[in-house]
Formats: sequence, structure tokens, C-alpha cells
Amino acid sequence: MSATMQLFTEDTSVRERVETLAQAIRDKDIDALMTHYAPDVVAYDVMPPVDVQGAADYRKNFERWFASMQGPIDYEMNGLRISMSESHAFCHCVSHVRGKRKDGEKVDYWVRVTTCFQKANGQWLVGHEHVSMPAN
Amino acid sequence: MSATMQLFTEDTSVRERVETLAQAIRDKDIDALMTHYAPDVVAYDVMPPVDVQGAADYRKNFERWFASMQGPIDYEMNGLRISMSESHAFCHCVSHVRGKRKDGEKVDYWVRVTTCFQKANGQWLVGHEHVSMPAN
Repeated sequence: MSATMQLFTEDTSVRERVETLAQAIRDKDIDALMTHYAPDVVAYDVMPPVDVQGAADYRKNFERWFASMQGPIDYEMNGLRISMSESHAFCHCVSHVRGKRKDGEKVDYWVRVTTCFQKANGQWLVGHEHVSMPAN
Repeated sequence: MSATMQLFTEDTSVRERVETLAQAIRDKDIDALMTHYAPDVVAYDVMPPVDVQGAADYRKNFERWFASMQGPIDYEMNGLRISMSESHAFCHCVSHVRGKRKDGEKVDYWVRVTTCFQKANGQWLVGHEHVSMPAN
């Protein structure tokens, strides 16, 4: 038990980053959101393509998503677990996404989110992110 | 550039673990495979459910997969990237999976794989894994 507790010891810095990132999603604040991502982030996103190379392309995914939604996005993280060292952290949760599309259609789904941070020049940045739904 | 290079510095220990894990998949060697996973691993797998809690349940997923396949699995990792500190590492790649099901059907698909390791008692163990395909 002590080994597990030690492994999942966290300070508040990464949790704050995760919370701030989630709030930027809720607010659809693309500039605030993108401050969290390393320029060379590699993302595996919900929709094709298989991978996204770099923050500029990942930004476009978020822009498309935000543009498709009416008003704020209800984004709730469940089972958030953070494991970190001084320079590396990985976090995962199952996020409940609710809202309304511009065409009025209600949106209500769950996604699995894995976010991997590295600390560079004293700042935590996302070097890799993986967001998905199970196949059906 | 130097910051990026520093962040992705790796020793061979994690790469060896990733290669050994991949070989256990190819060989469908469930016992060798499961030596890589922490007892409290949380996995987000290709198929439902949304999450898998613990190595005992994750083992069942692999057992089902291995039992469905005829002979070895051709498992090729592409674009493998490893980022690590002394105690934490995250790795990701796009894996090409090929083989033949027991019913003779050919299998040929790509999955995104994120594997997060922690070092405990000198041994790297997977604390979290996320495997998915893009939604269609």
C-alpha cells in the first residue's frame, strides 16, 4: 500500500494544470487552452486521423469542436488519477461531455482522457494526449 | 530544440520494457505480458467497457484477444516515442496489428497505444494504458 501511495503522491501543480485546462474547454477559450500544450505534442483524438502531430494541428481540432457547440461545454472529469515525478506526470480520467450543438442537437457522451505532462523551464506542458471512446 | 531533446532523453530501460511487452503480445504469452502491469493498473481498452480497473480484469481482455487469434500476432509499433524521468515514463505509438482469427478471417488494423510506467522497487510497471481506434 505504501508503494502505491508513494507512486500516486502529487503536489497541487499538475492538478491545477488539469483543472485549468478543463476550465478552458468549458469556456471554449482556445488561447487559454493551447497554453497547456507543447509545440511538439502528439495527440490521438476521438475522431480521425489516427494521430495529430503538433500543437498547431491539435488546435484546429479544438477549434472545430468549439465552433460546433452552442454556448459553454459541460465537461466533468470522473476518476481523475495523477501520477507524477518532479518532471513527468500522467493523468487519466473519464470525462462526461454535455452540451448543445449549433443545430440544437443535444450532446451527452463519455470519453477516456489520458494527458501526459513534462516540465520544461519550470512549466508543465502536455507532451502527449489520448482521447477516445470504446469501439462499438 | 535542446529543451525538446532533453525532455525526450531516455535510457534503454523503458525501451526494453516496451519491446519485451510487445514481444509477449506477439507470442501471446499472457504470463510474461502481465509481469509488466501494476496490480492497480487502470486501462482504457479498444472495446467496451469504458475502463478496466486492475490487472486481473485487464488480463481477461488479453486472454479473450489471444484466444480469438490463430498463431502468433504480428504487432508492429510505429512512431514510438518515450519520455521519461527516473521514476515516471510515458510512451506512445501507433501499432499495426495483423494476423488471422480462429475462424480464418484476416485481421489488419491500426491502434493508438499510450503506455504510462512508474518505477517501484527498481522495476518499471505500467500504471495506466490507453488503447483505441478513432471513432468512425
